[in-house]
Amino acid sequence: VSGSPTVAECSERELIARIRGHLPPAPPWMLVGVGDDAAVVEPERNRVEVLTVDALVEGIHFERAFVPPDAIGHRALAVNLSDLAAMGAAPRLALLSMALPASLPLADFDGIVAGFTALAARHRLHVAGGNLTRSPGPLMIDVTVMGTVKRRQALTRGGARPGDDIYVSGSLGSAAAGLRLLQSAAGSTQVQSSVFSAQSQSATEYSRLTTAYLRPDPRVLLGVHLARNRAASACMDLSDGLADGVTQIADASGVGIAIDAGTLPIDPAARAFFESRGGDATIEALTGGDDYELLIAVRPRTQRRLTAAMQRGDVVLTRIGRCTAARGVTLRGAGGASIDALPQGFTHFR
Amino acid sequence: VSGSPTVAECSERELIARIRGHLPPAPPWMLVGVGDDAAVVEPERNRVEVLTVDALVEGIHFERAFVPPDAIGHRALAVNLSDLAAMGAAPRLALLSMALPASLPLADFDGIVAGFTALAARHRLHVAGGNLTRSPGPLMIDVTVMGTVKRRQALTRGGARPGDDIYVSGSLGSAAAGLRLLQSAAGSTQVQSSVFSAQSQSATEYSRLTTAYLRPDPRVLLGVHLARNRAASACMDLSDGLADGVTQIADASGVGIAIDAGTLPIDPAARAFFESRGGDATIEALTGGDDYELLIAVRPRTQRRLTAAMQRGDVVLTRIGRCTAARGVTLRGAGGASIDALPQGFTHFR
Repeated sequence: VSGSPTVAECSERELIARIRGHLPPAPPWMLVGVGDDAAVVEPERNRVEVLTVDALVEGIHFERAFVPPDAIGHRALAVNLSDLAAMGAAPRLALLSMALPASLPLADFDGIVAGFTALAARHRLHVAGGNLTRSPGPLMIDVTVMGTVKRRQALTRGGARPGDDIYVSGSLGSAAAGLRLLQSAAGSTQVQSSVFSAQSQSATEYSRLTTAYLRPDPRVLLGVHLARNRAASACMDLSDGLADGVTQIADASGVGIAIDAGTLPIDPAARAFFESRGGDATIEALTGGDDYELLIAVRPRTQRRLTAAMQRGDVVLTRIGRCTAARGVTLRGAGGASIDALPQGFTHFR
Repeated sequence: VSGSPTVAECSERELIARIRGHLPPAPPWMLVGVGDDAAVVEPERNRVEVLTVDALVEGIHFERAFVPPDAIGHRALAVNLSDLAAMGAAPRLALLSMALPASLPLADFDGIVAGFTALAARHRLHVAGGNLTRSPGPLMIDVTVMGTVKRRQALTRGGARPGDDIYVSGSLGSAAAGLRLLQSAAGSTQVQSSVFSAQSQSATEYSRLTTAYLRPDPRVLLGVHLARNRAASACMDLSDGLADGVTQIADASGVGIAIDAGTLPIDPAARAFFESRGGDATIEALTGGDDYELLIAVRPRTQRRLTAAMQRGDVVLTRIGRCTAARGVTLRGAGGASIDALPQGFTHFR
């Protein structure tokens, strides 16, 4: 039993005032910000606008038992920034809509907002408005973001051609391993680090894997530079897993894609974690849905532009396959001999 | 026990395909529509953009027991269109984000989408994207809309001055009465119309009141014309009730507002309904939160512009009060003598 105040003790206006307390001064292009019926913004000259919305639902996308409030806010924005990154767009503004259980501690509300606004500030994204309502069930955070990009530089899924190389940013599997570690720790009476050290891995690795799940770093800078120097023929993010991403780019571009399993940049600690549990790290890396990395198709002749974008985007890129004229998506085993259809990616409803 | 299919039997991609089946062809300014990581749109020349988000949560804003699926979709968009109208903006695009219980019948999903897209088509608003996820609890629909308006024509809450007249569009109380009728009918074994006829009102009145709740008609055309001919010094919508709206305009404009209770355009059938239950129709009209009407401040010298906007907006406007130099919001009784502070409006969390 806790005596700490909850959101139910505040009016909507008081909660909005708490959010405003986290916001920097509005930029000059925000003509009307939080507090009227709607926000009014001036479009950026010579840019088209990129819009996306994504929701995090308690019990589906996160558990409050092991995801701290600031990480909930961080992730709610990160999944959207990742979509902007996949289009090559620079972030501009967000609308933050939350459905809050009446029992939500006010300190947790503040923590969610702090995590959200800290990531927003890092990417120069401004909160233009939002909505607050009660939820009779789970906590839900629905975030709309808008970014901008030059008209001919937006990165779609549909531009890959046979012969293009397929790259992925960062490493794979770490967020899925981090989630599993957090779940184990939440279901255990041990302190968290001992769950991991029982598997003879270090506290540093535990921290890196759980951070990959809790506070993913969307590849905004990489996306912007890929768009600016026209290094990518197609791009998307891995929010629904690598297998899903490869299938989507192949379908949208009208090509096949052959992935070389031996080249997948699986995080070594994640691999060790999955294998210690009798799992297959390759399958986990293909189907895990929490790696907010970019999947990129590149014409071989623009390889040098890709290298430049990678350096400016401050993240490693790994070549993992190639586009083929023959349709279909295949996985070549580490030995090089076997060819399989890709395992099914993550789907929300099935 | 029903054998009808549910959304759980569909993949996310199949559900998105069902939504796309309801959409008209994308307009030329929508460079990338539904189906990529994000939508890409070209801004409209010489316009600023108006953005807002609003959510409907089952159990808070509607009950599936007595709100049919198409009305859920209609209302989810109408509440947002009403915010655009209050800013004087012409609707342009929407993002539709839904959290769906696995048990939701597929026919209900289709009905929600049909109600949403029918209202969108009527206002030339295009669906640019969205998000679908499962909900472990209530159905939630979160809608972001963008509209456009000329830079100096956006209607805010802050422009009223002492001496301005205060007007409201349409009539008040009908949605609140309609909701009460639907609740009574849902809790009763009688057929719906007999609940109403027991109170000796007609089936036509029953239908008008329940329609006001289920399928509100946002004042988009009125808002656009108020902005174009600069007829309003301040404007907002009544989504949180008239008392709240009056207070917000007074606070944002730094004026007082005196409302004349005798002039409130309370729907006669709604008045009869409330009074038959021993209620006070004035209080209901002031605090009911489902009238999606506009509250408008008008300089006396621009009265003729207001009349023109009213005619083009196809809705009646009624003068209900006046802005005063003395701060504070007051209600003058029908007799003209008593002056009270306004009753508190609707708040989400208290």
